[in-house]
Amino acid sequence: MSLLILGSVALDTVKTPIEEHTDQLGGSASYAAVAASFFSPVNLVGIVGDDFPEEHLAFFKSRNVDLEGLQIVPGKTFRWSGEYMWDMNQRETRSVELNVFENFTPDLPESYRSARLVLLGNIAPALQHHVLDQLIRPHFVIADTMDLWINIAKEELLRLIARVDMLILNDSEARELTGETSLIRAGRLIREMGPSFVAIKKGEHGCLLFGENQFFSCPAYPLEDIHDPTGAGDCFAGGLAGYLASRHLSDVSLTEKKEIPFDIMRMAVVEGSVIASFNVESFSMDRLRTVTPAENVERFETFRTLSRFGAL
Amino acid sequence: MSLLILGSVALDTVKTPIEEHTDQLGGSASYAAVAASFFSPVNLVGIVGDDFPEEHLAFFKSRNVDLEGLQIVPGKTFRWSGEYMWDMNQRETRSVELNVFENFTPDLPESYRSARLVLLGNIAPALQHHVLDQLIRPHFVIADTMDLWINIAKEELLRLIARVDMLILNDSEARELTGETSLIRAGRLIREMGPSFVAIKKGEHGCLLFGENQFFSCPAYPLEDIHDPTGAGDCFAGGLAGYLASRHLSDVSLTEKKEIPFDIMRMAVVEGSVIASFNVESFSMDRLRTVTPAENVERFETFRTLSRFGAL
Repeated sequence: MSLLILGSVALDTVKTPIEEHTDQLGGSASYAAVAASFFSPVNLVGIVGDDFPEEHLAFFKSRNVDLEGLQIVPGKTFRWSGEYMWDMNQRETRSVELNVFENFTPDLPESYRSARLVLLGNIAPALQHHVLDQLIRPHFVIADTMDLWINIAKEELLRLIARVDMLILNDSEARELTGETSLIRAGRLIREMGPSFVAIKKGEHGCLLFGENQFFSCPAYPLEDIHDPTGAGDCFAGGLAGYLASRHLSDVSLTEKKEIPFDIMRMAVVEGSVIASFNVESFSMDRLRTVTPAENVERFETFRTLSRFGAL
Repeated sequence: MSLLILGSVALDTVKTPIEEHTDQLGGSASYAAVAASFFSPVNLVGIVGDDFPEEHLAFFKSRNVDLEGLQIVPGKTFRWSGEYMWDMNQRETRSVELNVFENFTPDLPESYRSARLVLLGNIAPALQHHVLDQLIRPHFVIADTMDLWINIAKEELLRLIARVDMLILNDSEARELTGETSLIRAGRLIREMGPSFVAIKKGEHGCLLFGENQFFSCPAYPLEDIHDPTGAGDCFAGGLAGYLASRHLSDVSLTEKKEIPFDIMRMAVVEGSVIASFNVESFSMDRLRTVTPAENVERFETFRTLSRFGAL
């Protein structure tokens, strides 16, 4: 089953205390699609200008990312520029040029409308709604979001949350959205807003997954050197969605009913964390270009070891 | 094997946004000893005044905590008062009355000096050194500490760290001690200062354990309501030390050599986390008075479930 991924496709300029890279491949859909491609074919929905480098299109295609849903229009591609502080935890946006993104209306190709598994990547909730409206009978819809939309489009975001099966957000966003300081209470409250599953990302502290009366605490991979945190959350969402899509391909029972077993969601969260942990090791998605299947398996096994105990 | 625990014995006044309790049993040695008593007999080293309630002494004794090393001297018991902010994460010390603690010199009873397993609970590093100096041949020494000692007694603390087998501290203290923002780097740096094991407590995010080329990420129990966080760190240290002491009792191979297998340390960290998670459910150590063995086993199993994945 193909996975539909909506989001931004951008050219990013990223500065860290160590180095700066200009106009590199970025955007929530780009990161998520490449991460998902480790597990599943992807149908990408986004927009770029006619300045978008051909090599990036070729890279997507080489990763089995279908680009029929990627609009290429006259004008400049969306550009984002940000700077990380010395501890790599805090980020400041230096500039945003919407460019062609300003008039983006994501109209789905006919063949995309029957998508069963959908990742509405981090983008304005109105666009997430617009895509959702065009889907015939989606089986499982995941939405990612960010603090910006809580601040400027909360009503549309709440309406979206009520329509999706899973929401992904980070710890400060979960607190902001619910007004709760306890992440445990926040996660449960967000489930009551609609989604069957909620994943709260905690950066260096890993991730919490909430299901119906079930809970999973995924550890963070113990990275000593983070080169570029950009896109880590998108890779997490993409890897997670890609894993679910691959399970759908192989497990007929999953395609028949709405419910995804919690044990499969645990695995999806770990697989997303594995891909995200690779991604921060280099700028843009350079590390994802070189990850071998053996490295992927090895890191998955390391995740297992990280939190294992009791087999004495 | 008895476990030797050094620390403060106090009467605490604790205020939360919900309630306030006055002159309740507190202090690092009290919490640690009661937590450890779930696993092992304890020899307690501390000091109280002649105002210390007889009922607390009886409670210690009922828990198999030996009090030969508890000095009871004329004067008032050490008193601490603190207030938790609305999110229960931040705490302000309202007052400290050292009282009899001011002239505390922990001289060990003869029978305590052969202690093999030792927990130097959170207390001035000079007193931790003083106890260490009196021990004949300790097998494994754990030290707990806090930011106060990093600020006012760093040199003595560093000297202590070089003398112990395991250091326990929280995330902000680890960052302060090493000047590193990455907890992974901080943990490895502290190991280079001497201890074979380092445990970094992260409150709601669980705990990290560092060994030689080994790493364990222990999840936090998903508590929705925390009534009184006081003593959680002491209970963690005490439960961990108590578990190690119980393993020493039952496993001769452990008493023969200095090295404790990493898998046993993983278990000790989880057992400490279990006890600490109970303790914050009520004021003082009231919850620890009522925990049943069945509840303890059940929560341990929950910890296993929290981070389990992959058995599909």
